[in-house]
Order: sequence, then structure tokens, then C-alpha cells
Amino acid sequence: MPVGTQGTVKTLSPDELEQIGAQIILSNTYHLYLRPGKELIYQAGGLHQFMNWQRPILTDSGGYQVFSLADLNKVKIEGVRFQSHLDGSYHFFTPESVIDIQRNLGSDIMMVLDECTTYPCTLDQAIQSNRITLDWARRSLEAFLTSQPLYGFDQTLFAIVQGSTYEEVRRQSAAALVAMDFPGYAIGGLSVGEPKDAMFEMTGVCTEILPKNKPRYLMGVGKPEDLVQAIELGVDMFDCVMPTRNARKGMVFTRNGPLIVKNATNKDDFGPIDPECECYACRNFTRAYIRHLFKAAEILGMRLASLHNLHFYLELMKQAREAIFADRYSKWKKEFLERYFFEDSNIFEDINDIKNS
Amino acid sequence: MPVGTQGTVKTLSPDELEQIGAQIILSNTYHLYLRPGKELIYQAGGLHQFMNWQRPILTDSGGYQVFSLADLNKVKIEGVRFQSHLDGSYHFFTPESVIDIQRNLGSDIMMVLDECTTYPCTLDQAIQSNRITLDWARRSLEAFLTSQPLYGFDQTLFAIVQGSTYEEVRRQSAAALVAMDFPGYAIGGLSVGEPKDAMFEMTGVCTEILPKNKPRYLMGVGKPEDLVQAIELGVDMFDCVMPTRNARKGMVFTRNGPLIVKNATNKDDFGPIDPECECYACRNFTRAYIRHLFKAAEILGMRLASLHNLHFYLELMKQAREAIFADRYSKWKKEFLERYFFEDSNIFEDINDIKNS
Repeated sequence: MPVGTQGTVKTLSPDELEQIGAQIILSNTYHLYLRPGKELIYQAGGLHQFMNWQRPILTDSGGYQVFSLADLNKVKIEGVRFQSHLDGSYHFFTPESVIDIQRNLGSDIMMVLDECTTYPCTLDQAIQSNRITLDWARRSLEAFLTSQPLYGFDQTLFAIVQGSTYEEVRRQSAAALVAMDFPGYAIGGLSVGEPKDAMFEMTGVCTEILPKNKPRYLMGVGKPEDLVQAIELGVDMFDCVMPTRNARKGMVFTRNGPLIVKNATNKDDFGPIDPECECYACRNFTRAYIRHLFKAAEILGMRLASLHNLHFYLELMKQAREAIFADRYSKWKKEFLERYFFEDSNIFEDINDIKNS
Repeated sequence: MPVGTQGTVKTLSPDELEQIGAQIILSNTYHLYLRPGKELIYQAGGLHQFMNWQRPILTDSGGYQVFSLADLNKVKIEGVRFQSHLDGSYHFFTPESVIDIQRNLGSDIMMVLDECTTYPCTLDQAIQSNRITLDWARRSLEAFLTSQPLYGFDQTLFAIVQGSTYEEVRRQSAAALVAMDFPGYAIGGLSVGEPKDAMFEMTGVCTEILPKNKPRYLMGVGKPEDLVQAIELGVDMFDCVMPTRNARKGMVFTRNGPLIVKNATNKDDFGPIDPECECYACRNFTRAYIRHLFKAAEILGMRLASLHNLHFYLELMKQAREAIFADRYSKWKKEFLERYFFEDSNIFEDINDIKNS
């Protein structure tokens, strides 16, 4: 899912998203609640109408943002009090209010409010936090089942498994949520600083328990190599800002690995970002031109890189699906990774610089 | 002509420019010479190839930018020495080198190097400056006639009339350039701070002398009302950053006058910028959404406003052409202005705030 936090996938138009084959996008309850507010989006006829995107939308509950962006937050059993990162105003989210906001947004997939643990956290913290998250999940489901959609189409609700890097807590969380019989499940609280091994281990612990016949969504992940790995563990859905955020900083993905398109090595490279790619950027523009756009701080550079990166991710997922259907996923994954990592380079240091800048 | 100073019309793709009917765009010799440089653009196969724009391009000579942007400039009879506004490096433009750069860019319409007087300047300064500008025009024409295009298609060269706000100097300048028999003529050195009356007076002085059967181009102008006025004086071509620059700051043009789309009055306005407009922005998005994009600092807001404003300008010029062909220009102009200025508002103060921010 391309990420459109504030009701727009950064730099791109809905037309472009359709053209690259985006089937669903993610938007954010926390951000849209604060600005422009649920009332305005209700007046507009819901988020689809507001942003002119007719395909599905999943809205994150805002749990993660309350704990990562808001200036202050205090969790009680009733909900979480926080200060807006925009103007410092005080707000209170409850499982019920977050369902109500998402009813107003009219997202096709709503997410339950959860408490996202930081990494590292103690076993005791993970257990305490999970107790609240499970209680909130129960209340969210109740609020979902006793409320109605506002725009004439059905909405659904996914639960979020937490438990930090503690296998036992993850198991308890997943099993308890499965017992509540949600239409879909997300794995949250990962990709927040833990070692990569722990992320995959926890993902596997969750997908073992979460039902195969329902969507399983790994939140906030990640790099192309992480996606293909998680798919093997049974994950069906992803969201990540990486393709768009890195694009805006001049980093693009190719079948031969990532590339800092604004680096001097591309100064006089008159080939496309990726000769095998069929996106608008690769069909029409050279690396040299896109590098020029970045050096000259021209917005078209960010647009073309964003369009390309999302196209790359969507194409990657399409190939993964085809490989699964053809029962050759492991072979496909191996081929993808071998080519992606073929060139020994220090690009990953550059990418970390980009992420931290 | 939409302005694409650095080889891109800010925020927009070539596809979008074609869709709104742009027949020609303007780019800039000074900027492209400094970055990415004429050699790189030559290697790319010319500016059309580099930026993937197959319709005509006019390149400004860089004269105006040397005098307005460069940190230091010193005019000699040979040319002008200046410091790059990017890195402080020293450069020297001559009439001949500017033709050579534009041969490398491969613009369809090249402009002569001129000295653009500041406003105000004394009569003596205007006369001295005009002497240099005329000498440079002669040398530019010579360089044009003795050089060849590099990409298999013809290029042409326009002269630039100077003379500040001194009628007699303007007349001398225009007459001398007409005697040199250029394929087209620009009126430069206006819209640089002089009173609006003086701008139109000087424009009229020039168009009286410049041949009717050749393009007459008023450089750097301007507001919609200025364009329709200048057309009546015989002007055929314009360029201005106003539609795109103002768009990026949240100001859009409508048939009922300009509008600060990010103002709070549009907060819950679910109509388009202009209900009669057929651009992508007006067909698909509301004022409320575009305002949200600006408040949230989302690039799509700048894109939609830029697309709309250029569409507005191009549509205005199309209507002006049709009115001329139908021999009802004065009537059309009166109707346009009456509607455009119908609403008494303080918007022009807001616009001045925008221009100065």
C-alpha cells in the first residue's frame, strides 16, 4: 500500500497511482483527525470523495502516531491522552472514538486503536501493554459491530497483534485476537528498532497463529528484501513510507539494487533509472535529467522518483503473487535477491544517511 | 509561454503541459549554462531530448538574469562578466558565446544577449546601455548567421528592444533592430518596477515600429489584465512566472478574479477552483481539498494550482486569439475585465503579500 498519510500520496496524483496499478492506499487517522478533521471529511462525503480516490483505502488507527509523533501521551485504560504535534492542543483517543473517526473517514479497512510498545521494552511492559491492547481490540470490535457505515458501502476492521519481541506475548496476543474473530489481522510493533532477525522471528510466530484465509498485514515494513522474506512467512499486505520518502531524497530502487540517482555517477548517464521498468519516469527520462532535477531542487525530480519507486514495489508484489500462484515462490525470491544484491557496494551506508537526514 | 527556467516547468511534467495545450515553453540560458552546463545538454541531444519536451522551446539569453541574479556583474563592450549565484564562480558572457550556448541547447527560438537596465535609470544611462545592446544585437545576428544548428532542425533568433521608459531611446532601439531584419522581436526591460502606464506606453511605442508580420514578444509580463491590454497594443507572445510562482504559494486565477485558495474561506468549499474550468484540478478536486493540501504542505497542492493557473492563462490566450479572428477583440476584452474585476475585494493586498513572501 502506498502511504498517503495526509490524504495524498506525497507528490503524486490519484491518476498516477491508478496508472501504476495501486489497488489500495493507506491513510492515517491521527493526521486526518487533527487536520482537516473528521467533520470536514464527513462534509466532503468521506475520504474517497475528499481526495478523489475511488479504490480502497486502509486507515491506520493513529495508535502508532500517538506514541511516535505526539508531544505527550498518557495511556489509561479508557484510552490515550496526547498533545497534537501540530499545535500542542490536547486530545483523547479511545477505541470507540477511533472507530467513530474512521466511520467518518469512510476507509474500507479500519484499524483498531493499539498501544505500540517502543523497542526495547521489558517483558513486564510488553505484558501490561498487551493487556490494554487486547482490551481495546475487544472494545473496538464492539464499537465496529454496533455502528454503521456512513456512505453506503461496507467497512471492515483489522486487529493488531502486539507483544514486542517476546514470543510468548505475541502468541497470547495473536491467539486472543483470533478468538475475537476479526476479518483481518495486522502485525504491529515491529520495524521499530529491533534486530532484523527478531522482526522475522516475531512475524513468523504471528503468522503461524493468524488464520491463513484472512489477510495478514505486516505494518511499516519495509525494504524490498524484507517484503519478499515476510511473504514467505505468510504476510499478504504491507505499507511503508520507504518508496516515497527515499524517492524524495533522491534514492530509487532497481532490479539491480538501490541507486542514489542524485549521485555524481549519474551525471552523464543517459539511460533510464531501470531499463526494464515501464513506468512513466523510465520510459521518458534519463538518470542524468532526474539527477539535474534533484540538484536544481525541482519538484519533478521527487515526482518521477516517487512514481518509479512505487511502481517498483507494486511490480515486485505482482511478481511475488504470480510466483506464488505458479508454486515457484522460493525460486523467484532467490533469483530476485541474487540480482538485487549482486553488486557489492556501499550504497546501504548512503541509504542510512538518507534515512537519518 | 509557461516558464521552465531550469529545464522543467516547476512541479509539472511534460505530459501535463501537453494536456493543457502548451504550444511552447520558455527556458533559460543563464540557468542551464550554469547547471547542468551546455556540454551535458549537448551530450543529451539538446534540451528537447534532455527534458523530453518535443514542442518548441524559447530560451531567454540570460541577459536579464545576469543583471538580476548574479552576484556581481561588469559590462564591457566585449560582454558581461558575472559571478554565479550558485557558487560564486566567475563567468563571461558575450553575444557570441550566448548564441553558442543556445546552439547547444537547441532551442527553437534563441534570444540575443542584451543589457537590461534597472528602473529607474537616467536618460544618459539608457542611451549608453542601448548603444551596447544594439552592438550586441548586431554581433548576435552575425554569430547566428555564421553558425549552424546542431540537431538537424532550424533555430531562429529574436532581438530585444531596450530603452527603459524613454520613448526616444525605445524608438531608436526598435528602429535600429528592425533595420537589422531579425525574424522576431522582444520588448525587454519592462515590468521591472516602472509604473503600469509607462509599461503600456513603452509597449505601444515599440509595437508601432516593430513589424506586424513578425512575432512581437513582451518579456516577463504579467497579470491576466496586463496580457489582454498588451495584446490590444499588438503583442503576440508572453512569458511570466506568475501563474506557476503564485500557484506554489496558494494563489489561483479564475474568471471571477484571483483567489487565495489556501485562505480559510475555502475551508469547506466543496466546489472546484473554477466551475467553468476543464483542467484536471477543477474536474477532480475541491477548493477544500486543495486548501488542505496547502495547509499540510503537500506538493500535490502546488501541482494542482500550477496546472490550473497555466490552463487559465493558455485558455485566456486562446480566447483572445479567437476574438481577434472574429474581429471582436475589444468587446471580448471588456467582458473579460468586467467579470474579472467584478468583485470588490482586498485580494490584491493578499497577492502583494504573497509576492513579497
